[in-house]
Amino acid sequence: MTNVTRSDLQQLDHEDPLASFREEFLLPEGIIYLNGNSLGAMPREAVQRSRRVVEVEWAKGLIGSMNTAGWFELPLSLGRKIAALVGAAPNEVVITDSTGINLYKVLAAALQIQPSRRVIVMEGSNFPTDNYMVQGLLAQLGDGYTIRFAEADEIMAAIDADVAAVCMTHVHYKTSNILDMETITERAHAVAAVAIWDLCHSIGVMPIDLNACKVDFAVACTYKYLNGGPGSPAMIFAAEKHHGKYRQPLTGWFGHAAPFDFEQDYRPADGIRQMLSGTQPIVSMSLAEIGIDIALRADMQAVRAKSMRMTDLFIELVESRCSAFDVSVASPRDASQRGSQVSFYFADAYPLVRAMHDRGVSCDYRAPGMLRFGFAPLYNSYADVWNAVDILYHILQAGSWQDAQYQQRNLVT
Amino acid sequence: MTNVTRSDLQQLDHEDPLASFREEFLLPEGIIYLNGNSLGAMPREAVQRSRRVVEVEWAKGLIGSMNTAGWFELPLSLGRKIAALVGAAPNEVVITDSTGINLYKVLAAALQIQPSRRVIVMEGSNFPTDNYMVQGLLAQLGDGYTIRFAEADEIMAAIDADVAAVCMTHVHYKTSNILDMETITERAHAVAAVAIWDLCHSIGVMPIDLNACKVDFAVACTYKYLNGGPGSPAMIFAAEKHHGKYRQPLTGWFGHAAPFDFEQDYRPADGIRQMLSGTQPIVSMSLAEIGIDIALRADMQAVRAKSMRMTDLFIELVESRCSAFDVSVASPRDASQRGSQVSFYFADAYPLVRAMHDRGVSCDYRAPGMLRFGFAPLYNSYADVWNAVDILYHILQAGSWQDAQYQQRNLVT
Repeated sequence: MTNVTRSDLQQLDHEDPLASFREEFLLPEGIIYLNGNSLGAMPREAVQRSRRVVEVEWAKGLIGSMNTAGWFELPLSLGRKIAALVGAAPNEVVITDSTGINLYKVLAAALQIQPSRRVIVMEGSNFPTDNYMVQGLLAQLGDGYTIRFAEADEIMAAIDADVAAVCMTHVHYKTSNILDMETITERAHAVAAVAIWDLCHSIGVMPIDLNACKVDFAVACTYKYLNGGPGSPAMIFAAEKHHGKYRQPLTGWFGHAAPFDFEQDYRPADGIRQMLSGTQPIVSMSLAEIGIDIALRADMQAVRAKSMRMTDLFIELVESRCSAFDVSVASPRDASQRGSQVSFYFADAYPLVRAMHDRGVSCDYRAPGMLRFGFAPLYNSYADVWNAVDILYHILQAGSWQDAQYQQRNLVT
Repeated sequence: MTNVTRSDLQQLDHEDPLASFREEFLLPEGIIYLNGNSLGAMPREAVQRSRRVVEVEWAKGLIGSMNTAGWFELPLSLGRKIAALVGAAPNEVVITDSTGINLYKVLAAALQIQPSRRVIVMEGSNFPTDNYMVQGLLAQLGDGYTIRFAEADEIMAAIDADVAAVCMTHVHYKTSNILDMETITERAHAVAAVAIWDLCHSIGVMPIDLNACKVDFAVACTYKYLNGGPGSPAMIFAAEKHHGKYRQPLTGWFGHAAPFDFEQDYRPADGIRQMLSGTQPIVSMSLAEIGIDIALRADMQAVRAKSMRMTDLFIELVESRCSAFDVSVASPRDASQRGSQVSFYFADAYPLVRAMHDRGVSCDYRAPGMLRFGFAPLYNSYADVWNAVDILYHILQAGSWQDAQYQQRNLVT
């Protein structure tokens, strides 16, 4: 049994150096939101910003807002900001398109930088869209390209002199396991392979230093711990040393050296701008800036410390209070190896997640048989940790998750 | 000299069956907006809709809005709506990503349907991003693929038995020339080539019947005459007969047969859903629905009739009143051959456009030496036609466009 009490957690909230950030978000009453790793909460400033973008920049500025509201440069100006969150130089990052499409671009670039190899190493259990996008590119390239799938403990051995690129997700979407960015990148470089990292589940919730780790390319979404809004455009990082040495294949006018000269032939822009393709969804992109600005004001070391403490406490409380119910932890027990979500195995996870929703706890089901709880240190409190466990315990104790109403699989979760 | 008078145009406004649509848009006072072919005006409903998406669906519904607000199905539900505007079946269209990225997908699909040919016919003077995207795909494919550029009068002869795909823009972004969709598509099919059409400058402003013309694939943006908002996501049409016969290369989880089963390997969804890749920018996409709904309520025959009449009158008035100033029409004189914008050659077009802006006329410069005026029949009036010409005349008469302040080329136009 744990000796952690509700008042211990209240005390931690009282002492929390990040507590004031919670006020910057509008969280619906009566909900303990542990799905910030799927879609981050809305920063209050988004209300004013969306009104400005729609009702002023679009309605009144019209096409002139390309200049006067900075729309045309938004992918680069947001890139310069987000760079500081990932240890990149300001000229190494843009915001554009979706994570998957950006992965397609950077892998195509990577395979031009290392053209003599045909193997891409990926984690087989990775979030599937990354694997799918790589499969799509390789099917198109033909020419003997293949994916070598490896699980976390097999990755280092899988990286040999046949490998063109290593394409890894920093924090695992299901287990929350952190891959060692520096060591895996070093191993890739030791065999002259290119290292690509997907930061979707780590950006905004822990310190990241792409250049210290000598990463070649990276992608990330902005709608999880960066709170950019539903489907807000994604990030691309390309290390400066590679600029000009590849041509990503989605060659649209925004990546042209002179987009308004309307030349017949494509001529790539210098530097990171070449990663852009077409016109961007400006309303969604503008909203992404708010969450980036909030993250830039937060001390990422403090965010990480709170994240580790919350997830430690959550595991400790679940294991202590729910030990009778076949709930077993699926995430690393060592906080230093764990991202900001915690997953548990439970045979009937789907109805249990639905029962949790009904009791006001927003958490996630991941097939098969897994509950996932994400902790966003900028707006989740230690009290959320206590209360979520308390509700989980009472549902399990009462067996109410077995009610017929929770069996129906009609939800995208 | 024309004998058209200001009161004639006022009378046309009085009789205009589309006049009531103007009230559905918020147009800034004092501006004659002739740039709806770059970015459509804001429908008033966008104010409430953006508030709902941001302040209710995101802030309160959070990730649950994937289900409860229909976010997950939005690319398909908007596709079903827009289908009626382009003569497609509801299961042949989705809204997703950008026009350029969508063109990449459909051309890759087309080249799988006609795998034995290596030539793509395009209009060399087309809006460059289409050409650039095709160049990007062909560079990646290698294998002897090449573009055969042809101008409007050369297209039919350029389509021979070496041609895999014909990739045309329906209305030319500069000249406003309409290509004959039915005849060119028929010619493509006669040599067993695939026909792809870009509808960016025609969707929402004239009747389009893709299936009557037997078009294979099409793309379009939603932010010009469909008034979807800055950079709102684009359309893909794929004729049902081709479904299941290609695999577009940007294979993300939204196009997977079972996206929430998290299978390791990509398995394409049936039908049009396979054209989807990653998570979409929901705020921008939601706003696009408003303009689509407005266009669906409009009689497209009446829209086209007003468009032709406005552009006819604009040409007649400019040629009559500004004949002393070396302004010459660059668009077809026959309205049936012309889209909804009118372009004029003028040696110093850039400073003239800036002088027009200063006098409240929003029009466009297209390098080199071209003025472009777009007419959106749903919110432009015949009085706008008169007033824009009047201002143009007075600027030319006074020579004020030669002022130094208008020379500086610091604007994206």
